[in-house]
Amino acid sequence: MSKLELWFGDQYEKEKGRYLQIKGDNVLKKVISSFQEICVVETPAFGKVLINDGIIMLTEADEAGYHEMIAHVPLCVHPLPLDILVIGGGDGGTVREIIKHSSVNRVDVCEIDKMVIEICREYFPKLANSFNHKKVHTFFEDGAKFLENRINQYDIIIVDSSDPIGPGTTLFTEQFYHFLFRALKEDGIAVTQLESLFWHTDFIKSTFRFIKKIFPIPYYYYTMVPTYPSGMIGFSFCSKKYHPLDHLVSERANQLPDLKYYHTDIHRAAFMLPAFSKDIFKSIKQGN
Amino acid sequence: MSKLELWFGDQYEKEKGRYLQIKGDNVLKKVISSFQEICVVETPAFGKVLINDGIIMLTEADEAGYHEMIAHVPLCVHPLPLDILVIGGGDGGTVREIIKHSSVNRVDVCEIDKMVIEICREYFPKLANSFNHKKVHTFFEDGAKFLENRINQYDIIIVDSSDPIGPGTTLFTEQFYHFLFRALKEDGIAVTQLESLFWHTDFIKSTFRFIKKIFPIPYYYYTMVPTYPSGMIGFSFCSKKYHPLDHLVSERANQLPDLKYYHTDIHRAAFMLPAFSKDIFKSIKQGN
Repeated sequence: MSKLELWFGDQYEKEKGRYLQIKGDNVLKKVISSFQEICVVETPAFGKVLINDGIIMLTEADEAGYHEMIAHVPLCVHPLPLDILVIGGGDGGTVREIIKHSSVNRVDVCEIDKMVIEICREYFPKLANSFNHKKVHTFFEDGAKFLENRINQYDIIIVDSSDPIGPGTTLFTEQFYHFLFRALKEDGIAVTQLESLFWHTDFIKSTFRFIKKIFPIPYYYYTMVPTYPSGMIGFSFCSKKYHPLDHLVSERANQLPDLKYYHTDIHRAAFMLPAFSKDIFKSIKQGN
Repeated sequence: MSKLELWFGDQYEKEKGRYLQIKGDNVLKKVISSFQEICVVETPAFGKVLINDGIIMLTEADEAGYHEMIAHVPLCVHPLPLDILVIGGGDGGTVREIIKHSSVNRVDVCEIDKMVIEICREYFPKLANSFNHKKVHTFFEDGAKFLENRINQYDIIIVDSSDPIGPGTTLFTEQFYHFLFRALKEDGIAVTQLESLFWHTDFIKSTFRFIKKIFPIPYYYYTMVPTYPSGMIGFSFCSKKYHPLDHLVSERANQLPDLKYYHTDIHRAAFMLPAFSKDIFKSIKQGN
């Protein structure tokens, strides 16, 4: 191991006076694409780490909790998920989970930055090999533009985006959520990456103001990812017809292979949020 | 605000190649007690932060999730909690939550380092004012020695300790858990601070090997605390008679005032753990 200590961390959170510092052994890749700087760093604590524009996208050690929860929660609620769209998700982790569901006919992936996929194919094959699956079709476009003319096409749309800065900005607007609604079939579900309940509370609050107007069944759920800001990250669950707990198809969930994080009890638990957030979301009552 | 940037973080995690860096505005207090270095730093992100021996003990911004969950989970499960012991807990946050339960007759606090209480009285009065309550009695001793000769005395013992390094080391041994068992009444519950499921998995695993031998009802639950390593921290729930979900007294839980984190649904959700930990703990099944 090198005696030179290389430390890196989330540049956006650093400005806020709080950020996870991670020690790197070696910078394996550093390129500038048309959209962003993409780096892969080998670390002793977390294996290989993908960092876009100075922000941690994933680490080998804890990516499963993110990808399993963004994919299996909507896929285990929809009674028959056939046509799936992933916006973002260029590392392939979300697609890897989606294709575990045998009902799925087609997975479209709209990733703005082709170079992310190329780099992940090389450095994160356990994630990006999923792009080789015959059901998977990739498109290299801005997610909002891709959605604009697609109507009533998908059972599930998963917005596996980076943060609301840089190339992902268009994926956090009210208009984009209208596009999501329109591109979904009449009983569709959209799930979007929606930041930390602890550290980005105001952003989530303002996003939920319009989500609640657009989708009849709007919820928020979370997963624990130690290398993301605050150690957790949440998702909006934007549904036209199905309730995230009442419609959970346990038999299908229980058959999923190779899970490190997801199971039906953690599916339910993920919708139970700390008391301080009760004013932001419609709360789910399980017991009393 | 000073132009000098003061950054600090958990020294123990830094050695592991991962640690939260927090920006400080000002060091309000720095003293060396007989046991450790105690610092209070004012920060823009988290308000005042208590740091003992270079390890973050609490921040004003997120201490509630820790203290509410370490206290209310056992207190809302025991049908009649009268006599409570807190080992550690010198900041007063755990006692602040315990005395919200009107059934409680007596709270003994055994804190090895008197100076922690004195400093918290000055800098964290919202927590440490709880020591003024007439039911609360403080003892300044090593927790293991305090317990050694106490038999069948407490309904609930809460071990609100620092990490298994420094003055807290004696609180993580198998012998200590035998002392806990013996000091509890025949239907008592002990809850102990037990590190991060993500980053200290092996330590938890080895501790649970003997917890399972000593207590008939051993579980693990967690709370999210963004400024602790990995953003979460767990607790052992060591019970002689009561099950953490089946015996939850919702009526009492629903009457607790001034909660930022705890409620009955998050009580239940906190016992639902990621799939990767299923080999360590007895798992709780809620649904199917």
